[in-house]
Amino acid sequence: MTSETGPSRPGASWTGASWTGVPAEHPFGLHTLPYGVFTDAAHPQPRIGVAVGEAILDLTAASAALLPEHASLFSGGSLDALLAAGPASWSAIRAALRRWLSDERHAAVLTPLLVPATEVKMQLPFTVADYVDFYSCEQHVTNVAQILRPGQPALPANWRHLPASYHGRAGTVVVSGTPVRRPSGQRRHPDGTVTFGPSTALDFEAEVGFVVGTPSTLGRAVPLSGFAEHVFGVCLVNDWSARDIQFWESVPLGPMLGKSFATSISPWVVPLAALDAARIHPPARDPRPLPYLDDTGAEPWGLDITLQVRLNEMLISRPLFRRMYWTAPQQLAHLTSNGASLRTGDLFASGTVSGAAPGERGCLIELSWNGATPLRLADGSTRSFLADGDEVSITATAPGPAGSTLGLGEVHGRIRPA
Amino acid sequence: MTSETGPSRPGASWTGASWTGVPAEHPFGLHTLPYGVFTDAAHPQPRIGVAVGEAILDLTAASAALLPEHASLFSGGSLDALLAAGPASWSAIRAALRRWLSDERHAAVLTPLLVPATEVKMQLPFTVADYVDFYSCEQHVTNVAQILRPGQPALPANWRHLPASYHGRAGTVVVSGTPVRRPSGQRRHPDGTVTFGPSTALDFEAEVGFVVGTPSTLGRAVPLSGFAEHVFGVCLVNDWSARDIQFWESVPLGPMLGKSFATSISPWVVPLAALDAARIHPPARDPRPLPYLDDTGAEPWGLDITLQVRLNEMLISRPLFRRMYWTAPQQLAHLTSNGASLRTGDLFASGTVSGAAPGERGCLIELSWNGATPLRLADGSTRSFLADGDEVSITATAPGPAGSTLGLGEVHGRIRPA
Repeated sequence: MTSETGPSRPGASWTGASWTGVPAEHPFGLHTLPYGVFTDAAHPQPRIGVAVGEAILDLTAASAALLPEHASLFSGGSLDALLAAGPASWSAIRAALRRWLSDERHAAVLTPLLVPATEVKMQLPFTVADYVDFYSCEQHVTNVAQILRPGQPALPANWRHLPASYHGRAGTVVVSGTPVRRPSGQRRHPDGTVTFGPSTALDFEAEVGFVVGTPSTLGRAVPLSGFAEHVFGVCLVNDWSARDIQFWESVPLGPMLGKSFATSISPWVVPLAALDAARIHPPARDPRPLPYLDDTGAEPWGLDITLQVRLNEMLISRPLFRRMYWTAPQQLAHLTSNGASLRTGDLFASGTVSGAAPGERGCLIELSWNGATPLRLADGSTRSFLADGDEVSITATAPGPAGSTLGLGEVHGRIRPA
Repeated sequence: MTSETGPSRPGASWTGASWTGVPAEHPFGLHTLPYGVFTDAAHPQPRIGVAVGEAILDLTAASAALLPEHASLFSGGSLDALLAAGPASWSAIRAALRRWLSDERHAAVLTPLLVPATEVKMQLPFTVADYVDFYSCEQHVTNVAQILRPGQPALPANWRHLPASYHGRAGTVVVSGTPVRRPSGQRRHPDGTVTFGPSTALDFEAEVGFVVGTPSTLGRAVPLSGFAEHVFGVCLVNDWSARDIQFWESVPLGPMLGKSFATSISPWVVPLAALDAARIHPPARDPRPLPYLDDTGAEPWGLDITLQVRLNEMLISRPLFRRMYWTAPQQLAHLTSNGASLRTGDLFASGTVSGAAPGERGCLIELSWNGATPLRLADGSTRSFLADGDEVSITATAPGPAGSTLGLGEVHGRIRPA
């Protein structure tokens, strides 16, 4: 298994101590160091930041002072240049950040560049190239099939052979906090009539997203082993879904307007290297995948991420990512198996993360069983689908080094009326 | 109906005469004036060009000399800035081009800026933002349904209610002339086994593409009447398709790897204004579309475009775009009806243009009836699907002003082995 290397490699001697005072066990401690883009009153132009506890290190300024050979990666107002720089640069910069934040000699230069997180506005962190949404959680597929087609086979015929996916709309990927207007669209009523109007079945989907850094060449597949060379890191994704629009439109071409009105992502991209301690073996597959997808004996890329979903600040679900049938390297290998190329900023999401238990389900259609058993919230109200004014928040954690816990930040958004 | 205005408005007095010597009846005469991006030996940096007969006017240079207030739109090496400039600029620039090319007083300045088309290499003309592929030809849908599911209803239940579409892969849209490597992928054999290997059912699809210039706001639908405000022009599209990969993967999420390996577009984008004389009434619809799609009494946006498909230079089909059930304004209105926003460079394609007669079918699976009746070529060879080395060319023409014929250029590509 690959792991962090160099002077700051976590391990027996890893303490996570920092002159900044951020506790080693903070979800955004030195073991996380996610990247994002922010503006604030002093800086209306977007700057690159690294989250350090409750503060943000202004990396656009810090790199100019301490890392001039890489400063151009942080001057463009987005993570695009950093993403394109590739694994050697990613490692070098992460090692430098750990040194700066552990070694008190850098405190004088860096302290003025730490901005309280409460004083900034986070921006979309990178230019989304192509957005692909997978469908890789067996329990989600099974639940939805039982809801919509009870008594019929739950899994599509191809599901255990390939990680199914579709392209979503890259232009409507928005950063966490962006309000989401209830979409209008066509739906078919039980009597067969078709009308156009505001969705009456607005839903969220809790997902994990993977952000591509290094591009690939048209005509060349990226093997399982090429994953960490191309993928920079991880974010959280809310794949908002209007079920009524989606179900009427999606045969035979798949989901389109039921999804394309908005997809929210968390502002912080957590580097793959931070997830070393979260890597676990994926579940057993049957049938054994075709060779290009067969990860038997390969470095494991299951990820022990636990999501938390809150509706109006009330916890409603804790989906477990560790059970996903297909891993991100398999998704990437399949996505490129026909020679399709990758671009910097490609985003691919896992598909709804769900579980068998009601408290593990990753979307409302599962949690309310399509309205058959409305979800009861802690305040006594119930939901079959989202109401205007509802706010959905997805957070996530994973094991960090030496028993610590890693934070993956948050993606949230509030529903505005149509 | 909108039409060209100003001193160069075509009409009774329109002659199309030019000091350049391009005949008025040339497909790329002064009534067309499509925009593209080229490089040549003298200019390794991409430049904007306008096709004038067999020559290309270097608009990057010409605008600096004659249209300095718009020169910045032509200095970026792509059409992106021109697309974003909006309808008033599009009209002003097109009128200026007509003046320059009709009025001999500009010959001295412009003659040195005319480059023979044979001496340049055409480039991808604009940055593709999101790529959407529609499915709007009733005869194509009917033919494919009869091939795959004989005896069952040909049209999906939603087909006459909405222009169905899916998002394709923007990152693998390539310019005409780019070789296309035969994709590999999973397919299921009649005995139920699933294997991975080079596609044995590689196909083309002849389509017309629409290029978005002016962006729209997230949350706001673009009505039918907003079409010409947002759409800059038209190109030709070959939506290469690996049928074996496509059919195995596409339930329930739609086409993905069977399409995402490559989509070719013509290098010349023909402005909407050039298509004035090609506009016709679309076919009658039943049922009447919902209000946001109802173009009854609106300015007609059927387009009398005839495509020509050649395989290894032998004409195999002449699909008629005039029969398309849904028009481009309806496609755009539907695409944004949920509030999804448009970006400069969004590309949406019509779907395969096909007809009832064998000589009008727009893809090989229809022309060979999925191999049941292989297509016989003029050289005596036959095809069920594309062979390595095959070259597919799609060209198109449409009525121009005063009895002239407009050219839409060509998209071509040759199949390379897997």
